[in-house]
Amino acid sequence: MFLLFKIYFNVDIELTIVIVMGKKKSGRDEVTELKVSKSGNFSEWYNQVVQKAKLADYAPISGCMIIRPYGFAVWEKISEWFDTKIRNTGVENAYFPLFIPERFLKKEAEHFEGFVPEVAWIEKMDENEERYALRPTSETIMYDAYSKWIRSWRDLPLRLNQWCNIVRWEVKATRLFLRTREFLWQEGHTAHATRKECEEEVLLRANQYRELCEEQLAIPVVMGKKSRSETFAGAEYTIALEALMPDGKGLQMGTSHNLGQHFAKVFDIKFRDRDGEEKGVWQTSWGLSTRTLGAVTMVHGDDKGLVLPPRIAPVQAVIVPIYDNKTKEKVLKEGGKLKKRLENRFDVHLDDRDAYSPGWKFNEWELKGVPVRLEVGPRDIQKRQVVMVRRDTGAKRPVKEKELAKSLGKTLDLIQENLFEKARKFLLENTRQAKTFRDLERLMKNKKMAEAYWCGSEKCEEKVKEKTGATIRCIKEESAKKEGKCICGESSRTIAYFAKAY
Amino acid sequence: MFLLFKIYFNVDIELTIVIVMGKKKSGRDEVTELKVSKSGNFSEWYNQVVQKAKLADYAPISGCMIIRPYGFAVWEKISEWFDTKIRNTGVENAYFPLFIPERFLKKEAEHFEGFVPEVAWIEKMDENEERYALRPTSETIMYDAYSKWIRSWRDLPLRLNQWCNIVRWEVKATRLFLRTREFLWQEGHTAHATRKECEEEVLLRANQYRELCEEQLAIPVVMGKKSRSETFAGAEYTIALEALMPDGKGLQMGTSHNLGQHFAKVFDIKFRDRDGEEKGVWQTSWGLSTRTLGAVTMVHGDDKGLVLPPRIAPVQAVIVPIYDNKTKEKVLKEGGKLKKRLENRFDVHLDDRDAYSPGWKFNEWELKGVPVRLEVGPRDIQKRQVVMVRRDTGAKRPVKEKELAKSLGKTLDLIQENLFEKARKFLLENTRQAKTFRDLERLMKNKKMAEAYWCGSEKCEEKVKEKTGATIRCIKEESAKKEGKCICGESSRTIAYFAKAY
Repeated sequence: MFLLFKIYFNVDIELTIVIVMGKKKSGRDEVTELKVSKSGNFSEWYNQVVQKAKLADYAPISGCMIIRPYGFAVWEKISEWFDTKIRNTGVENAYFPLFIPERFLKKEAEHFEGFVPEVAWIEKMDENEERYALRPTSETIMYDAYSKWIRSWRDLPLRLNQWCNIVRWEVKATRLFLRTREFLWQEGHTAHATRKECEEEVLLRANQYRELCEEQLAIPVVMGKKSRSETFAGAEYTIALEALMPDGKGLQMGTSHNLGQHFAKVFDIKFRDRDGEEKGVWQTSWGLSTRTLGAVTMVHGDDKGLVLPPRIAPVQAVIVPIYDNKTKEKVLKEGGKLKKRLENRFDVHLDDRDAYSPGWKFNEWELKGVPVRLEVGPRDIQKRQVVMVRRDTGAKRPVKEKELAKSLGKTLDLIQENLFEKARKFLLENTRQAKTFRDLERLMKNKKMAEAYWCGSEKCEEKVKEKTGATIRCIKEESAKKEGKCICGESSRTIAYFAKAY
Repeated sequence: MFLLFKIYFNVDIELTIVIVMGKKKSGRDEVTELKVSKSGNFSEWYNQVVQKAKLADYAPISGCMIIRPYGFAVWEKISEWFDTKIRNTGVENAYFPLFIPERFLKKEAEHFEGFVPEVAWIEKMDENEERYALRPTSETIMYDAYSKWIRSWRDLPLRLNQWCNIVRWEVKATRLFLRTREFLWQEGHTAHATRKECEEEVLLRANQYRELCEEQLAIPVVMGKKSRSETFAGAEYTIALEALMPDGKGLQMGTSHNLGQHFAKVFDIKFRDRDGEEKGVWQTSWGLSTRTLGAVTMVHGDDKGLVLPPRIAPVQAVIVPIYDNKTKEKVLKEGGKLKKRLENRFDVHLDDRDAYSPGWKFNEWELKGVPVRLEVGPRDIQKRQVVMVRRDTGAKRPVKEKELAKSLGKTLDLIQENLFEKARKFLLENTRQAKTFRDLERLMKNKKMAEAYWCGSEKCEEKVKEKTGATIRCIKEESAKKEGKCICGESSRTIAYFAKAY
């Protein structure tokens, strides 16, 4: 163990990548070691990372998860950022009941059809009581209230959001964060006086999701309308944000729906306009869930575990003091000083646990994906320096104490940028054009996302799904400059992204 | 209407209380007028304030409520304050499933008995599936996980909290915030190595609740253990914080439970201690809910509506510009300037809605309990002043623009203090000593809280409940200096608080 310190105290060259010997000596143990590689068994790797990094755990209820403090802290970072964003653009938070009367769900036929297969119901307490569903989404319960609250143009736009739990009784196998019977999300629900305002709102929220994905989660997305068959049940159209996972599957990061006047009609949401006329409102709804945590894990993680983008990392830098009995007091004091100096600007944690060795701590914080590790030992104190280690590249270099805050800020920015760039490169390299059905089949087999002309027919879409397992993730916003041929041979100006999904 | 402005522009004397004529002219309309007084019909007054101030609304599901944005914003103020408090004392947030297997609830017999009458269950999807309850509280589902996560003394103390929805299928009549089938709360759940640490934790959280009640909500409380019959199902003892409502009823504001090793035993939560021995953990749980919003409404409200303590007011000061067509631009500009100057230190809102008159706005913001109103008109601009009106006293005075921020800060402090003092006086004046059963009966009839010696017998407690409708709200922390006589005649050193409850 001691050897370890001696060795890397002598390493002093900037950007030199050093494999810390301590790791070999102490070894990754049961707790901190992943037993599979990301490329070897992606699905099992994912399960291990989520559980060993203590993001989430399986619950003793089939299909449910426990979001552990570390995972919840990431969700809080995501939700706080987004909450501020929507507040600054006119949204207020509220809370509507978990229970939805069956007759509400039935009002919008398409909506009901879309959700009923996965709805959970509560046992009736007495025969005369209505049947209540646990919310699979809250359009109906909210819009019933909207119909009472909205009277005049003065009440518009109405923009409410809620952060809540959602229940969808999935029958497919559970995947932590990706497919569970209960998850957390935000759902925004707005009502507007005109179609134009409504359309602008749909786009505004989609763009806020894009900003969240790309600038906070460091995950590039393709964005566009869903095909009719994948559109939200009850919506005119759905704009989806889709990311590409390392196993070639598409993952829906968020959706923003233009509900048109469908719900306004069935829930009778009318307002008296400035011109004195009574009109129906135009509505949007949009949601983003804890599923994004799954995406972050899959996209950025590596064989050592999770890699968190600095902007959503609950701990941005961890200070690991390295000492023996003689130097303990001095080193811990220095660690405390460093923490104090940094904590106003960064989320920084001092790992002063005496019961664990530095090597064990290195492994654990790597597994948990903390962007930067700061090592400090007696020799560093003497040199008035700290050893800074990047989680994303493993790069290690000494930093002068007085430059630490500045250097840490810059390094965190670089990591954020690097993670996004790597993911962007992956998305570009793995999105391929398909000109024929054959192309598409081959691309799906090779775990790629396909970009292809699509004729727009549901039959063609259905055939793709049947033969290749892929769905249309979204339709490209801009139509093609010149006409092309759909994978089925029909001519078209529409380009769509195809991929398998979870 | 114009008369209004002219009149009070001439009023310039500090602290003169002026009845704004505009109110009479514009009148309180349907929307902003309460149709009963607080003293006249307290229960109906409460219902109207909650709904007209837009704190909450009845949901179309029997027994449920919708928390509207304004009410939710108050809850956010409360929860943010408390969340910071518990984080700073070692607590982390997490999220556990809404569903609890029936077999878990049954593990702790007393716990099951206590909750089963009001548990809602979900319909089984197939016969082989377990029966799941919707969480009425989360001890069992959380402690099952604790038994897996806790291995060593190094894992202790474990302190987790969750902010979530809770379902208790009440059969009594619904009261918004006070008794609904679903409500929001936080529940903290900790595990410790020793009984001593556990007891300290119970007290720490109770004292944090007291601080929240008294310093944030401006509601004085009595605090002490619950009698055995009122103790949380499964706990060794419960410390409760009880407030007195204007109708003489006691309201439980929060509770902190010492669970001893009951749950550790049934859920097998053991750890290896430093001495190598395997031991059971000691546990606490503690919760505070949206019910507190009901208490705030009842305690501070008046015949004009809600009165919010400044520290939990989503809008601490509202700027109401007063203008006609000629002065509109100038006055709105000034309003904007004032807002900008204040918004870094206070939650301030500029009510620039053109479709409503100043009189209507005054009424609405009074109904919503905004602590301070700032009126600004052309004459005020000329004099470089703003007219500041206190919601709690109605006191009105001009304040020089350059002293506004300072003066507003001071005024908000005064309001916070005044509300607490008024409530404290009410509590003192309405808590009376009962020496005999007769005394107690009379006090309950007269809507007082009684302080009386209590022998400690459940039979005596049961008799009180039967004959007077009162329950023991809590037992005074310090036992009496000299022995006295219980209301049943037995001698005792224990003093208890008695009151009716909702």
